[in-house]
Amino acid sequence: MKEFAYIEWLRQRIPADRRVLVGPGDDCAVLNPSQAPLLVTTDMLLDGTHFRLTEVGAKRVGRKVLAVNLSDVAAMAGKPFAAVVSVGLPRNGPKNIAEELFQGMRELAEVFDTAIIGGDTNSWTGGLVISVTLLGEVEPPGPVLRSGARPGDWLFVTGPLGGSILGKHLDFTPRVAEARLLHRTVQIHAMIDISDGLAGDLGHICAESRCGAVLFAESIPISDAARQIDDRRPPLEHALGDGEDFELLFAVAAADGQRLLSTQPIAGITLHHVGKCRPEDGIILRDMGEDRPLKPRGYEHELS
Amino acid sequence: MKEFAYIEWLRQRIPADRRVLVGPGDDCAVLNPSQAPLLVTTDMLLDGTHFRLTEVGAKRVGRKVLAVNLSDVAAMAGKPFAAVVSVGLPRNGPKNIAEELFQGMRELAEVFDTAIIGGDTNSWTGGLVISVTLLGEVEPPGPVLRSGARPGDWLFVTGPLGGSILGKHLDFTPRVAEARLLHRTVQIHAMIDISDGLAGDLGHICAESRCGAVLFAESIPISDAARQIDDRRPPLEHALGDGEDFELLFAVAAADGQRLLSTQPIAGITLHHVGKCRPEDGIILRDMGEDRPLKPRGYEHELS
Repeated sequence: MKEFAYIEWLRQRIPADRRVLVGPGDDCAVLNPSQAPLLVTTDMLLDGTHFRLTEVGAKRVGRKVLAVNLSDVAAMAGKPFAAVVSVGLPRNGPKNIAEELFQGMRELAEVFDTAIIGGDTNSWTGGLVISVTLLGEVEPPGPVLRSGARPGDWLFVTGPLGGSILGKHLDFTPRVAEARLLHRTVQIHAMIDISDGLAGDLGHICAESRCGAVLFAESIPISDAARQIDDRRPPLEHALGDGEDFELLFAVAAADGQRLLSTQPIAGITLHHVGKCRPEDGIILRDMGEDRPLKPRGYEHELS
Repeated sequence: MKEFAYIEWLRQRIPADRRVLVGPGDDCAVLNPSQAPLLVTTDMLLDGTHFRLTEVGAKRVGRKVLAVNLSDVAAMAGKPFAAVVSVGLPRNGPKNIAEELFQGMRELAEVFDTAIIGGDTNSWTGGLVISVTLLGEVEPPGPVLRSGARPGDWLFVTGPLGGSILGKHLDFTPRVAEARLLHRTVQIHAMIDISDGLAGDLGHICAESRCGAVLFAESIPISDAARQIDDRRPPLEHALGDGEDFELLFAVAAADGQRLLSTQPIAGITLHHVGKCRPEDGIILRDMGEDRPLKPRGYEHELS
């Protein structure tokens, strides 16, 4: 399929949306102005680094690239609404990659009421690469940043952690609905989605909030996948260090934390109280009454 | 440089901007809401397809990827204001690519008052790939689309065409200022930036506007580069078919066209009256009094 035929194919499959004044097919998309501040995030996935095309197929890649962006909007407690996509297709790759990518994105876009408003499709001699930029709306009382945690805050995660490499990194549900419900229920001081690992992403919250934290080893929910990985590393270590779980980590005042624990307000999700913030720098793991310092960062991409 | 160090490096170099509530370093950027509709465009550049890193260096690649996005906002007569960047760096490539890419973007971003508000930096075993999504504001009386040309309209281009492969495709000036001035001066019925070649992009305007057009061969401005390419194809053919000139092609009513020709309102730029729209389908080249049909499309990326 050639570029212009692909654009036509897309245009016929994108539903009309009241927020979209001009969709794909012009030099830019045009969106209705919003009364709320705008959230903008971008994530790129690369064959061999974030997925293996030959193993997972293009549809799951399309799903994942939209999901990781949705997860970033969830981390601000925002409401996603529009995405643009740019893609580099392997010239000698399998047929129909473009269509399959779009199918994967489209299914998730419908669930999360997100319009795909434009894109740029290219081919080259390299591997599959796809980048999405997602726009969202801030919801009252405002965006939740990484920087608002305070000493004494309770730390929560939205689900079991570790071992996402066995499948969850492709098929996770971005916690958009959960974040929006929490945002209406309590004052979230700080939030992040767990993409670099619990210890790493807690490190980001601590760095931005200028505080430290203690994690309670016994309270950290460990996924079945983390227990299944047979590499001699204990499951807890996977739960602390593995990337791409895309659960939310957030901080609330202790009183709000107690309320969340006793009411568990999110259907289908158990909130886990995994630790608390403290004034001293650094992250401590409290295990069987013993404290040991954790390295501040988990998984980090090496750039050059 | 590792990912987080790079984000820090970026944060220190991005000037404060009143429109940017939260810049790089959180899960999303946050922008002040705008009163005007929002323009959104995205373009990806790939090593070997849009540039050769070993020949041009990363700084010019960074400049180009922002410039092609700026050109898309210019084609809507909009005002660019914020960009996000995602990049895949070759793991075994030269050092400092990330910094050089940013330097190239930053210089152009300053000229066009555009804030770089976020990004996603990755490395992989493949070649350099970079994608930018640019946001812009629609300016009164509204965005200029491809679809508003009418039979009888005069067609203009903003500069000489052809042979951009000799250098202009990297170093062109996106016609943002020129488009905004035109937008205040006349009613632009339709506009596009010439990325696929004059014939191809005129084909896009005609398809969206449901009209045809005639091009006057003697009036098409031919660049020096188009005359220098020694491949036995006549310079006019380069001017008609070569991609990536990034001049603007636009349609205005005949009376406005006459006014533009007589006043030439843009300092440093000569507007060229290259043809007119007609009710009949198809594009005709009128050369020495003889009409011949042009293929409706110029350069088209082959996807699979």
